[in-house]
Amino acid sequence: MKTMYQIMLCLSSGILLVASLVNTAQADTLLTEKRVFTLPEYTTVGGETITDVRVGWETYGELNEARDNAILITHFFSGNSHAAGKYQESDAQPGYWDSIIGPGKAIDTNKYFVISSDTLVNANPNDPNVITTGPASINPATSKPYGLDFPVVTIGDFVHVQHALVSSLGIEKLHAVVGASMGSLQAIEWAATYPDMVERMVSVIGAGAMDAWTIMSLEQWAQPIKNDPNWNNGDYYEGEAPLDGVTHTLALITQQAMHPMIINQLAPKQETLPAKALESVTNNLPAVDWLFNASRARASVADANHLLYLVRANQLFVAGHEETLKEGLAKITAKTLFMPAANDLLLKPYLAKAAVAELKELGKEPQYEEISGPWGHLDGVYTIQSKAETLREFIEN
Amino acid sequence: MKTMYQIMLCLSSGILLVASLVNTAQADTLLTEKRVFTLPEYTTVGGETITDVRVGWETYGELNEARDNAILITHFFSGNSHAAGKYQESDAQPGYWDSIIGPGKAIDTNKYFVISSDTLVNANPNDPNVITTGPASINPATSKPYGLDFPVVTIGDFVHVQHALVSSLGIEKLHAVVGASMGSLQAIEWAATYPDMVERMVSVIGAGAMDAWTIMSLEQWAQPIKNDPNWNNGDYYEGEAPLDGVTHTLALITQQAMHPMIINQLAPKQETLPAKALESVTNNLPAVDWLFNASRARASVADANHLLYLVRANQLFVAGHEETLKEGLAKITAKTLFMPAANDLLLKPYLAKAAVAELKELGKEPQYEEISGPWGHLDGVYTIQSKAETLREFIEN
Repeated sequence: MKTMYQIMLCLSSGILLVASLVNTAQADTLLTEKRVFTLPEYTTVGGETITDVRVGWETYGELNEARDNAILITHFFSGNSHAAGKYQESDAQPGYWDSIIGPGKAIDTNKYFVISSDTLVNANPNDPNVITTGPASINPATSKPYGLDFPVVTIGDFVHVQHALVSSLGIEKLHAVVGASMGSLQAIEWAATYPDMVERMVSVIGAGAMDAWTIMSLEQWAQPIKNDPNWNNGDYYEGEAPLDGVTHTLALITQQAMHPMIINQLAPKQETLPAKALESVTNNLPAVDWLFNASRARASVADANHLLYLVRANQLFVAGHEETLKEGLAKITAKTLFMPAANDLLLKPYLAKAAVAELKELGKEPQYEEISGPWGHLDGVYTIQSKAETLREFIEN
Repeated sequence: MKTMYQIMLCLSSGILLVASLVNTAQADTLLTEKRVFTLPEYTTVGGETITDVRVGWETYGELNEARDNAILITHFFSGNSHAAGKYQESDAQPGYWDSIIGPGKAIDTNKYFVISSDTLVNANPNDPNVITTGPASINPATSKPYGLDFPVVTIGDFVHVQHALVSSLGIEKLHAVVGASMGSLQAIEWAATYPDMVERMVSVIGAGAMDAWTIMSLEQWAQPIKNDPNWNNGDYYEGEAPLDGVTHTLALITQQAMHPMIINQLAPKQETLPAKALESVTNNLPAVDWLFNASRARASVADANHLLYLVRANQLFVAGHEETLKEGLAKITAKTLFMPAANDLLLKPYLAKAAVAELKELGKEPQYEEISGPWGHLDGVYTIQSKAETLREFIEN
């Protein structure tokens, strides 16, 4: 157990890191552009065929002539392909891992050709920077959004679509696949499904398989949507979207991704017995407004059905989709690095540890290092720079 | 951070403890009966007057002539006064802390007169063993349930009503007040509000004040009810109760009160890519059914408004209801013992540590010990016997 002193130390170093992240971002602007990859037809792991599959992608750095310097970045649950750089100089923020991807950075774009793609059923199809295919897409058979007619997809499906994208570029080997959270599931799935193509796999704040606790946590995120009458069994595209449900879903995800250490720093304080709160249980408290107003502001960019499909893809995950985790991991030949966050409350380090233990039992040599920080799960994004040297060494050797 | 070995060790000792709990319960049956305490009129901390306040209570052991051997037990969020013993020999289970309350046990009913009472706005007013007053009670002014006309109440109000009950028995000093979770809030509130009456205070899996993170967690529990159209702004007593909302609320509480270690032991396993789950996102997974079916089974015993009022009472808590926690704690003269659970994910040990640190700064000598176990928050109930000797020593000295 951490003492209060250690916690204070963590917190100050975390804040310093965030500050340095921001500085780094301003130092050298890497420019990129969003592109579209199209697959005329794709058959899912579940055996259903989808036509006209489209996902967005972007790159940083240059593909060399041998086409052997490519690194694939796979994104987290509420993320998208925008891992580094900016689309325009004037963008307020660079991509989420800009502190480790760029010229001279841990994933050095002077040496590597970095590819990052949107997944199928991306959480935020109404974000103009997201290109994805899912229940909110137009079903060519009906000219209306699919809704629940869209087939259930898995992390394996995300990876197969990325495989088609990577292959379309003439790339036969990936120098590495690197992802955080849901991105880590894709990274390990890549290593298990296409072992001959993946030389290095980095799992940040990740897992080798979902356990019952995480499967339940994911369902807690789905319930507010399923219980919102506007959801209407997935058929809401001509009416009002289930924004109350989506707002609660996003509030659950946001809180679970953050440790009390950082939330208690950032959220507004509460006076003792505020008069409004004593008036009615329907009057909100300041910390509650802080969380829920932010969640509501993001709700219209998300799509309720896409969130449900993402939940399901994650719930079904076991690396390699074999009968046991061990059978899936047995197929991996890549060098592997696991970096969970010590204070993570969403995918706690025991999940990465379980995958590492299985790999060791299989005679492999996984590398394991914990990220320290006050953010919890989000340390995989906001404190990743503290592991820049570990990552650089792993990538370059 | 625990290693896998420590986790395995924890888990086996936890299971042994649960087994021994069950054995203890069968060894000697303490019989008790539920009684009703009535206050014709009560004015809340918020200044509203409620007439005909009724709460249930029960006792174990005998009050001595000097009336100075009484110990008050205060209950947790989803609990009630039934802390020990059975109402009838044939009851399936004894009260929740039967492993530490009874003849010869840590809280020895051969020596002490133990009182335990239901709180105001108890979560489960439809449980025949619960007697409480809250929004589901009949408002004498209208002869209909209060609904949201019931005044907001605080942990201070729970304690004031208990104070009236204790005083009605001619008791002027409590040998100890002992509570788990929300019960710990009442215990510390007692020590801060009635310092001359409380000689010892035991906070199990507790806090001195709510922080922003916990205030938000509590709101996550309230949201499913507020978003359920059957809730109807609290006016549902003549229609259908908002059971979908209450079910999700209970599922959130249940999961948050348990650590993945125990959930992953108890929940059904999932086969890889189950066909039904690939068919539709609306088909549930086994672990999800396990949690939600259990929650639904308990939903009709709970009352949606009572849950919202309990959430609010907890959200407003700071010991002594003074401007700062320190000012509240400064009033405490009781000996204090704090026992958070090391693996708690709901009221993590930093909360008890913060109260202990403040008490030390005030020159007091709080005692602090962590409960180990696989249950998380519920270790405060299921693993409490591991701290029986600590508790006995604290109570008897």
